[in-house]
Amino acid sequence: MDNKTPVTVVGLGLMGQALAAAFLAAGHPTTVWNRTAGKADDLVARGAVRAATVAEAVAASPLTVVCVVTYEAVDDVLDAAGGGLAGRVLVNLTNGTPGQARRTGARVAGLGADYVDGGIMAVPQMIAGPGALILYSGARAAFETHRQALEVLGEARYLDGDPGTAPLYDLALLTAMYGMFGGFYQSLAMVRAAGIKAEEFTPMVTAWLAAMAASMPAAAAEVDAGEYATKVSNLAMNQAAFPNFIDANRALGLSPDLLLPIKALIDRAVAEGHGGDGLARLVELI
Amino acid sequence: MDNKTPVTVVGLGLMGQALAAAFLAAGHPTTVWNRTAGKADDLVARGAVRAATVAEAVAASPLTVVCVVTYEAVDDVLDAAGGGLAGRVLVNLTNGTPGQARRTGARVAGLGADYVDGGIMAVPQMIAGPGALILYSGARAAFETHRQALEVLGEARYLDGDPGTAPLYDLALLTAMYGMFGGFYQSLAMVRAAGIKAEEFTPMVTAWLAAMAASMPAAAAEVDAGEYATKVSNLAMNQAAFPNFIDANRALGLSPDLLLPIKALIDRAVAEGHGGDGLARLVELI
Repeated sequence: MDNKTPVTVVGLGLMGQALAAAFLAAGHPTTVWNRTAGKADDLVARGAVRAATVAEAVAASPLTVVCVVTYEAVDDVLDAAGGGLAGRVLVNLTNGTPGQARRTGARVAGLGADYVDGGIMAVPQMIAGPGALILYSGARAAFETHRQALEVLGEARYLDGDPGTAPLYDLALLTAMYGMFGGFYQSLAMVRAAGIKAEEFTPMVTAWLAAMAASMPAAAAEVDAGEYATKVSNLAMNQAAFPNFIDANRALGLSPDLLLPIKALIDRAVAEGHGGDGLARLVELI
Repeated sequence: MDNKTPVTVVGLGLMGQALAAAFLAAGHPTTVWNRTAGKADDLVARGAVRAATVAEAVAASPLTVVCVVTYEAVDDVLDAAGGGLAGRVLVNLTNGTPGQARRTGARVAGLGADYVDGGIMAVPQMIAGPGALILYSGARAAFETHRQALEVLGEARYLDGDPGTAPLYDLALLTAMYGMFGGFYQSLAMVRAAGIKAEEFTPMVTAWLAAMAASMPAAAAEVDAGEYATKVSNLAMNQAAFPNFIDANRALGLSPDLLLPIKALIDRAVAEGHGGDGLARLVELI
């Protein structure tokens, strides 16, 4: 146990608690801090050390993992940590933009510490489990030094030296997820409005989406090549059918708002002369 | 070969051609008609009979499958078929709304024929292959009579006696697909704007979406129960992170339009006091 790197976790929301619990379970001496100190109680009962201040927390370990709600809160943490960070590694798993990550990386470097940004592609329940993936970018040597500790949380995938890369991937993946969930929710609203149980319909959706997701690699190749001509289902055909979606939703008393931006992109692509292209052409119009 | 039901296919776009080709390949005597007659040439070379008129086409077989672009075109077909449909079965695989299907079912019944509506959950290349699914609803006995022939096209799943049910499922499934593709395209636009190849990023998206789709049955259960309390990632947390998506897209020179309706739903749900609920709560607000 003693040869495991001491780790500090700052921010004990659901995700931060899951991270700290994973380090504890793996035998890492774990120091925790949260603005509302009570959130550390369960972790302290399991062996974590409660730091009284952020400065004390970051001083306790060569590696500090920060997971708070926004970068405003990250800034507060850095204000409080101050010079105590010098010579240490800060891994920031707070959801933010590439720009926020780069700005924070520069600030942390200015405090004499190494900065790694990360995007957690998992919900708290998945942490330390088989499906958890965390994307990292930024200071490579610092990442490699602490790779073993970070692997405790889930698969640790290092992308590149730009601290903005991990948040970019994170936001892009979450964007894809929001799109999928938005479409799913709209479909559930539709069948429910017609008296069909969501649980009855959902196995059909998941099978269908899995079948359609199989086309994504081919779409990616089209995007990389900038070649969108198709023999499958072109934009003109999608445009012809699209009013059915709007009409059917309105007839069911539902808002078609989630569909309208897709309709707008299809209409614009056709108007610009791309009616014979496949749907992936829409990437060019976003 | 002679004991296979003769089938007529009206409409020879990419999908209609795939349907007729599947019937031919399975040994069904196949009659075809298309407004632009030349589209039948390949099928005729493979053994199909080219009908000179719609009336002749529907007279040639007990089962006529219609697959055209819009219900306006379906109406034209019915105008031209007229009394010739009496005693026959019309299976309409044209994309449309539940209302259009019900209206067409009533009209076809008035012509003395049985009406089955269908939604093709496949692209033309998938027809007669292992992944093809076609949903049917409407006249049950007529469907059962021709089930064997329809199974040639793909798995034939009968839903219920309302001809509007298959189009409802069809539109709902396609809605889910548009959402997923919209999110995927936005994510590709994001990584591409940062200089990352779509083909490099896409395997991560497909794995991530598959992992996230695993939560759909639980979301469906929440919708059916009307209970959305969560310990995972509640609406308030999603709301807190959402500006990052908008900001990151704008910083990349991209339009966040596809994301804005989801943001609007999240904002409204939180404003209505549901910040502690999970994302599936959004189904109630659509």
